[in-house]
Order: sequence, then C-alpha cells, then structure tokens
Amino acid sequence: MLTIAVDAMGGDNAPRAEVEGAVRAARTLDTQVILVGRKEILEKELAQHEGSDSLPIRIEHASEQVTMEDSAARAVRTKRDSSIRVASRLVRDGIAQGVVSAGNTGAIMATAKMVQGVVPGVDRPALASAFPTMKGTPVVVIDVGANVDCTPRMLAQFAVMGDIYARVIFRNPNPRVGLLSIGEEEHKGNELTRSATPLLKTLPLNFIGNVEGRDIYTGAADVIVCDGFIGNVALKVSEGLVEIIKFMLKESLEATITRKIGYVLSKAAFTDFKKRVDYSEYGGAPLLGVKGVAIICHGRSNANAIKNAIRVAAEFAGSNVNRRIENGLKEWSASKAVAKVL
Amino acid sequence: MLTIAVDAMGGDNAPRAEVEGAVRAARTLDTQVILVGRKEILEKELAQHEGSDSLPIRIEHASEQVTMEDSAARAVRTKRDSSIRVASRLVRDGIAQGVVSAGNTGAIMATAKMVQGVVPGVDRPALASAFPTMKGTPVVVIDVGANVDCTPRMLAQFAVMGDIYARVIFRNPNPRVGLLSIGEEEHKGNELTRSATPLLKTLPLNFIGNVEGRDIYTGAADVIVCDGFIGNVALKVSEGLVEIIKFMLKESLEATITRKIGYVLSKAAFTDFKKRVDYSEYGGAPLLGVKGVAIICHGRSNANAIKNAIRVAAEFAGSNVNRRIENGLKEWSASKAVAKVL
Repeated sequence: MLTIAVDAMGGDNAPRAEVEGAVRAARTLDTQVILVGRKEILEKELAQHEGSDSLPIRIEHASEQVTMEDSAARAVRTKRDSSIRVASRLVRDGIAQGVVSAGNTGAIMATAKMVQGVVPGVDRPALASAFPTMKGTPVVVIDVGANVDCTPRMLAQFAVMGDIYARVIFRNPNPRVGLLSIGEEEHKGNELTRSATPLLKTLPLNFIGNVEGRDIYTGAADVIVCDGFIGNVALKVSEGLVEIIKFMLKESLEATITRKIGYVLSKAAFTDFKKRVDYSEYGGAPLLGVKGVAIICHGRSNANAIKNAIRVAAEFAGSNVNRRIENGLKEWSASKAVAKVL
Repeated sequence: MLTIAVDAMGGDNAPRAEVEGAVRAARTLDTQVILVGRKEILEKELAQHEGSDSLPIRIEHASEQVTMEDSAARAVRTKRDSSIRVASRLVRDGIAQGVVSAGNTGAIMATAKMVQGVVPGVDRPALASAFPTMKGTPVVVIDVGANVDCTPRMLAQFAVMGDIYARVIFRNPNPRVGLLSIGEEEHKGNELTRSATPLLKTLPLNFIGNVEGRDIYTGAADVIVCDGFIGNVALKVSEGLVEIIKFMLKESLEATITRKIGYVLSKAAFTDFKKRVDYSEYGGAPLLGVKGVAIICHGRSNANAIKNAIRVAAEFAGSNVNRRIENGLKEWSASKAVAKVL
C-alpha cells in the first residue's frame, strides 16, 4: 500500500481541512496517510472523526510550522523541524512515497527540491496545474509559478515533463503540446518564446507551436508550456474571474422575485457548474521534476481538495512518471535534432 | 463637433458592423463619423439604413485593406492606401480627431505610431484595456499587447499614461496604480518587475506596489501595469474563461426540465450578466501615447462595440489626455526622485 505524507499545518484551514481530507482519503482510497505536525493538536483533531482510530492514518510530530509570511529561503534555512520539512524527509527516506501540502508554495518547492532532490536531467522542477477545457478533457499548464525567469532550455524540459504527466495521469496517448504566446504565428511572441520555438521543435513529442491565452480553455492543446510568471498570472486571473462571475450572477439573479424563483429551480445546475470550475476537484498542482512526489494545494483548500490531492499523489507515486521524465530527457539530450540547435 | 474616422474594412464582421455602429453613433451621439474603405461597398451598406443620408456620416475611399494575415510590417510597407492608413491620415491632417478600427491589431498600432506620431516624451505607445471589477468600478490594464519585451522605464511610462487615462476618462480622482506580479511582497516577481519597482516608486502618483492576477477583478487597483505579453495573455485567458463558463452553465442548465424552467425564469439575469462581462460594452482599447486618438476593437466586434468605441474615441479626443501625458512625463523626468534611481 502506498503512503502519502500530509503537511497538516500548511493551509488556511489547517489542521481541520487536512485532517478531514486525510480521513476521507483513508476511508475511500487504498492509501495510508501520515499526518505531519504538532502531535497534540493533530491527535485532538483526529479524535473528532468517529472510527478514525481504525483507519490507516498515523501522526508524525513536527514542532515548527512555516507561515505564509516566511520567505522560502528563511523557511528552508531556519525551520528545520517544520511540518513541510518533516513530511519531505519521510519521502526522501522512503517511508512515504509522496507529500501533499496546502502551505506556503515557495517554501514547499524549495524544501521538496532540497530534501527530496531532483530527477536526473531536470534543471528546474516546475509546477503543473490542470485546467478544464471546452472539450471536456483537462489541459496541463506548466509552469504555474516555480520559475519566474526561464530559459528556452527550461521551457523544453517543461514540455517533456508536461507531456509525460498528461500521458500517465490523464491517459492521453499523444498529447498536443503548445507554447503559450500572443498569436499563433511563430514570429508572434516575446524574446523567450521566439527563441524557445526551434528548441521545442526538436523534442520527440507532438509540439503544435504557439497557442494563445484563450486556448487554455478551448482545448486546442493538452499541455501548455510557459514561464512560471506568466503561468501564475494566468492561474490567478482565472481565479479572480471565476469569483467575479459568481458574484455578478448571484447579484443579477437576486434582483427580482421571478429571477429568484428561477434561481431556486436552477440551483442544481449551479452546484454542478461550480464543481466543474472548482480547482479543488483537480487535486492540487504537482511539482514535476522532484524525486518522489510533491503536490501543492491552494492555501484555501478544503477537505475535499486535500482528499483529491492525496488521491493524485498516490496515483502519481504508483506510476512511473519520474522514470519516464528521466529517460525522456536523456533521450532528447542525446538526439541529433537538439545537437543541431544548441 | 468632433469627427471620428472608422476603419470600415477591419473587423471580422466588416463592413456591416462598422457601418451599423457608425449609424448608431451618429444617431445617438453628438459626433460626426467618416467611414473609410471601398466607396462602392460602403455606399451600398449605408443605404440599407433608413434615413442614413441625413446623418453626419461621410465616406472616404481607400482602395486597399489589411487582412488578419498581413504582418504589421508588411501592412505598413506595402499597403499605402489601406483603410486603416487612410483613417490614420485623416487624424494626422486634423480632419478627424480619432480613429476606430477592429482590424489587425499589429497593423493598426504600427500605422497609428507611424502616421499619427507619438506624444513627446513617450518611448512606446501602449494598449490599455478596461476590465470590470467586484467593486463596480473599472480597472485599466496597460499594456495588453503593444510591447512584448519591456524595460522598467517603459512600465513607468505605462503607469503615467494609465493613471491619466483613469483620471480623465473614468473620472477617478486618485487612481491606485499596481504592478502585475505573482505576490504582493516587493521581492516576489521576475527580473522586470523587481527592477521596475524602485522606478515606479519615484512617480508622482498613487503607486500601491505589486498586485496579483486575481486583482484584475477584485478592484484592488484602478490601474494595473504590465508588459504587453503578460497583459495580452491575461486578456485572452479571461476571454477563454468567459466562453467556457457560458458553455458549461448552458449545458448544466439544459440537463433537466426543472432546470430548463429555472433557466427561462432567470434569463433576464443572464442577459444582464452577459452584458456586464461583455468587452464590447467597454468600447475597445485605446492605444495610449499616440498623437490624436486610436481605439482598437476586438476583431469580432459587433455594431454595439463599434458604437461604444466611437463614443470613447470622441470622449478621449474631447479631453486633454495627451497633453496631460506629455506634461506628466516631462515633470517626472525632471524630478529629483527619478534622478536618484536612474
């Protein structure tokens, strides 16, 4: 049975959401969970879930916790017994196969890279996030925030990692990989995208050229590669827009009594809909390129989001994503095509 | 009376949307319109609107048109009698005070810069776009696509231009100006944003530091500054997300008969809502920093979008935006604060 370590002190709703998510995961999935954090707090929280003592959950004590205000560097340097660090160590030592955290994103990334280490051949791990598309199939956007200033070589590695993730986790036999830019034509873009294009063309995968911001949602690509600054902005713009649309719709719907009746009758549709655009259904963002598995959840994650992240972590750990990334990068570096460009 | 030149051959729905938009504008606003394009086509189109011969609309012939496939450079170099070029020339010559086009964005920008010229002190004109916010007041995002690789100095100039636009057009007495980045703290960002921050702090305006992607919609700032690559991605991501949300809501609402009844009863709310997120209500994006006025509309603009763009162009032309930009930049360049940083 696979074991996933959950940083139980990380998110805005910690430890409640983390503990409840772990309980749900342990009840419904074939996975063991280690909750990492202050023992006395976690024991009390866990005891509130009936029958939790017979579930495959155990607690690992960590005396410190990283806050949202800590810089990544500070967290790594000074908080050596933080919940995220202890969780990462469990993966390094082979006690757990993956870690899930809804804490400080920068600190989780820095810790995972340092403690768990990096897959051979990967220069920089990158954060991947799945978005829903009009076609019904998800698209993997990589990088959504791990690396703010990227080189063409980094983008090429992101493409390899995203491609393999889409193949293994979303069972897509031939993902279409696009480069996020501001026009479909090759010459449209910035310095980075224009110099990345020839390199991306040398990859042994289905590179389809530039895609635009709207294509995150059209389903025109299965994997979209970008630097972490752009990817993060795209992610956050989407979050903000979903909020304002919910708000405006509610306001419009509450304006008259007829509409209110309409709202009641169509409520199920809204619940459906919210679920479909809810990031929590997608189970967090994997940091691709680190050894083992690290899944980063939104700070506001609820129990459902944590449960889904545990599911994704276990699925990832049970597959051969990292081995395939290593082999993919080795093959590509050795290829004649890339030798011509570099 | 102000006169606005409309490139009638530009958009996806040209010349129908352009001509109808001009008719609506001429009927409801105190503005004269010059439709620019193939005379015989425009005459025929205009004749379909009853009573249009008594409206303040005239046609200016242009034998060529720029297509969406033309590169900006090619359009400027080879199509010297294109509708956009002739329209821009009318502004240069003082016959019209502004130009509106839903054509090839790159070509419009290149043409306006070259033909109309640039406001003294501006290095690079930038495209501004208004977005709706939770607070009900619009936010001006600048640049959304004119300049893909920017320097800190360019971002500072965008801040000045956006600030003045928000003051004059949106009547905001003290706009909060934010820098689009990936975290509120100053150190969070990429090389460009980190080096732009000290410069932005020297501006004689209300600079509030970094804002995140979601803040485009929260209303945390009234002006958001970014390079044109990021801004364009943010704009297009938003368009794509609005499309998928419409699609998913419709699908969810049509799933059962009770929901269908609910849908009928709440339809007015949807119409309301669509209007509020509809870019066409915002009347296109001004290219700030060019002499005269140039308003760029979405290729898919309908008559309503064109009418609103004509309204904004007239409002812009009737104000002193360009003079204030010129003075603002002059004052800033001469200030002691900026001398210390540069």
